[in-house]
Amino acid sequence: MKRRSVRIYEVAPRDGLQNEPEVLDLDDKLALIEALARTGLTDLEVTSFVRPSWVPQLADSDHLVARLPRVPGLRYWALVPNMRGLERAIEAGVGAISTVVSASDTHNRKNLNRTRAETLAAQAEVIRLARDEGLAVRSYVSTALGCPYEGEVPVSTVVDVALRLRDFGAGEIALGDTTGMGHPRSVRALVAALVDAGIPLERLALHLHDTRGTALANALAGFEAGVRSFDGAVAGVGGCPYAEGAAGNLASEDLVYMFEAMGEPTGVDLDRLAAAGHLLEDLLGRPLPGRYHRWAAASTCEAGESCIA
Amino acid sequence: MKRRSVRIYEVAPRDGLQNEPEVLDLDDKLALIEALARTGLTDLEVTSFVRPSWVPQLADSDHLVARLPRVPGLRYWALVPNMRGLERAIEAGVGAISTVVSASDTHNRKNLNRTRAETLAAQAEVIRLARDEGLAVRSYVSTALGCPYEGEVPVSTVVDVALRLRDFGAGEIALGDTTGMGHPRSVRALVAALVDAGIPLERLALHLHDTRGTALANALAGFEAGVRSFDGAVAGVGGCPYAEGAAGNLASEDLVYMFEAMGEPTGVDLDRLAAAGHLLEDLLGRPLPGRYHRWAAASTCEAGESCIA
Repeated sequence: MKRRSVRIYEVAPRDGLQNEPEVLDLDDKLALIEALARTGLTDLEVTSFVRPSWVPQLADSDHLVARLPRVPGLRYWALVPNMRGLERAIEAGVGAISTVVSASDTHNRKNLNRTRAETLAAQAEVIRLARDEGLAVRSYVSTALGCPYEGEVPVSTVVDVALRLRDFGAGEIALGDTTGMGHPRSVRALVAALVDAGIPLERLALHLHDTRGTALANALAGFEAGVRSFDGAVAGVGGCPYAEGAAGNLASEDLVYMFEAMGEPTGVDLDRLAAAGHLLEDLLGRPLPGRYHRWAAASTCEAGESCIA
Repeated sequence: MKRRSVRIYEVAPRDGLQNEPEVLDLDDKLALIEALARTGLTDLEVTSFVRPSWVPQLADSDHLVARLPRVPGLRYWALVPNMRGLERAIEAGVGAISTVVSASDTHNRKNLNRTRAETLAAQAEVIRLARDEGLAVRSYVSTALGCPYEGEVPVSTVVDVALRLRDFGAGEIALGDTTGMGHPRSVRALVAALVDAGIPLERLALHLHDTRGTALANALAGFEAGVRSFDGAVAGVGGCPYAEGAAGNLASEDLVYMFEAMGEPTGVDLDRLAAAGHLLEDLLGRPLPGRYHRWAAASTCEAGESCIA
């Protein structure tokens, strides 16, 4: 296995697709997963065991998990919202789960239809059982860098939520900048506060959205603060399906390109990753907002010609 | 005037439009410039005094300069490629000019049809005369962070070119990442080398392209290295017109958003800037690749809804 100093956690099949109104065929999803699985990625979040009526795009999770290709060194993850989801995930044979709670109570209620306290209480049980069953657990803290309803979210609130998740047994805390409100200084301040509170850097991940264009700069700030695990969605799929071209998840290719250029190996083959992004554009029938994969596709364009400055 | 710690140098009317195959009406260009001029920007590069046959989009530079709105605190710049261009610029009444040379000889020959040495020799005269006439001068060094033909460009080469331009009398050196090959570490290394060589930070600017998605992260790295002047093009206009949606210039809104969020005032009204970006999209009849202005336009999208993590 290649040496890697940065881990890319790929979320396109779950976070990237969950808002897509047109449901993809299972075979198409598996083709995407197959393409991603052959890039050198170590972690791939493939689906969510939510109520099928809630996220129709991911209603096929049981069938999908049953058909996942086995690839050495690659771990598949599935999001589970509650105990019923965990039971389904275990039954399907998933080895690693993620959970989600919002740092902001308003966002938690709008998004998950419960108070933050209720969600946390439920997760205590879910995480404990998952650990008892030998599953790996990562827990997302959404709106960790700002809430679209409440605005700024106090760092102390995020720290409290993260400490509870750690105490429940979550192996990794993924800080979600759900609507891209973070900036380099808020990222740095949050990471420092979490480390001060006793959560080691190697248990933190950054899940950044590019809504306002800052995602990769925020990743750089996180890297400088010591974080080495970053979520990405191939080609930048995700975001709001009602705003064509609006940016959602940070594109995995852009993350990999930047870190590799900086001399920080990711273990991911960038050409194959961009090819997976092009496949996904074909499957969805539209261009996706990532930068690197678009540049890689424009091979007929003589870079530098008529570029005056 | 507002306190500002970061200067945004807006290049959309020149660098953003120069590759647009469809020539905009003079009135439309003036409407864009008017919108940009009312945002609080201090510096706006509006056109280029090149041979009309070479860049048809900018063939109206004399007429355009004659009709520029006077706005207190705002300086208009025009690119001049040679002595003939400088004469036209002076005749038109421009008070500030920019020049361009590539750090890479191959790029200089392909782009300007001369060797780098020939271009530099010509610029010695252009810059000297401009200074004698009391004009402000900034000089672009293109391909300062990589060349699409030669690959990596040695830092020592960029330093040599920058020192010569400084000695000719250029007040500001704008480091151009012409095809977006820079990364945070190369930006930092280049800035440090230039400062070591005797060019003070306040005479450096970064002109970053977002071809591979790294432009804003590179701006952050430049800021951390002490640079306080950044070029942007509203809505991210520019780039290669043959690759729809491909990213070109770093979007000014994204720059302003990040710095303002970090608590570093730019003096630019972000709402008005995004409105100028929307105007430009209307004029060109297509969406442009910047992030912030797209998000700002998607006001009907309830941020946070169905955003699971």
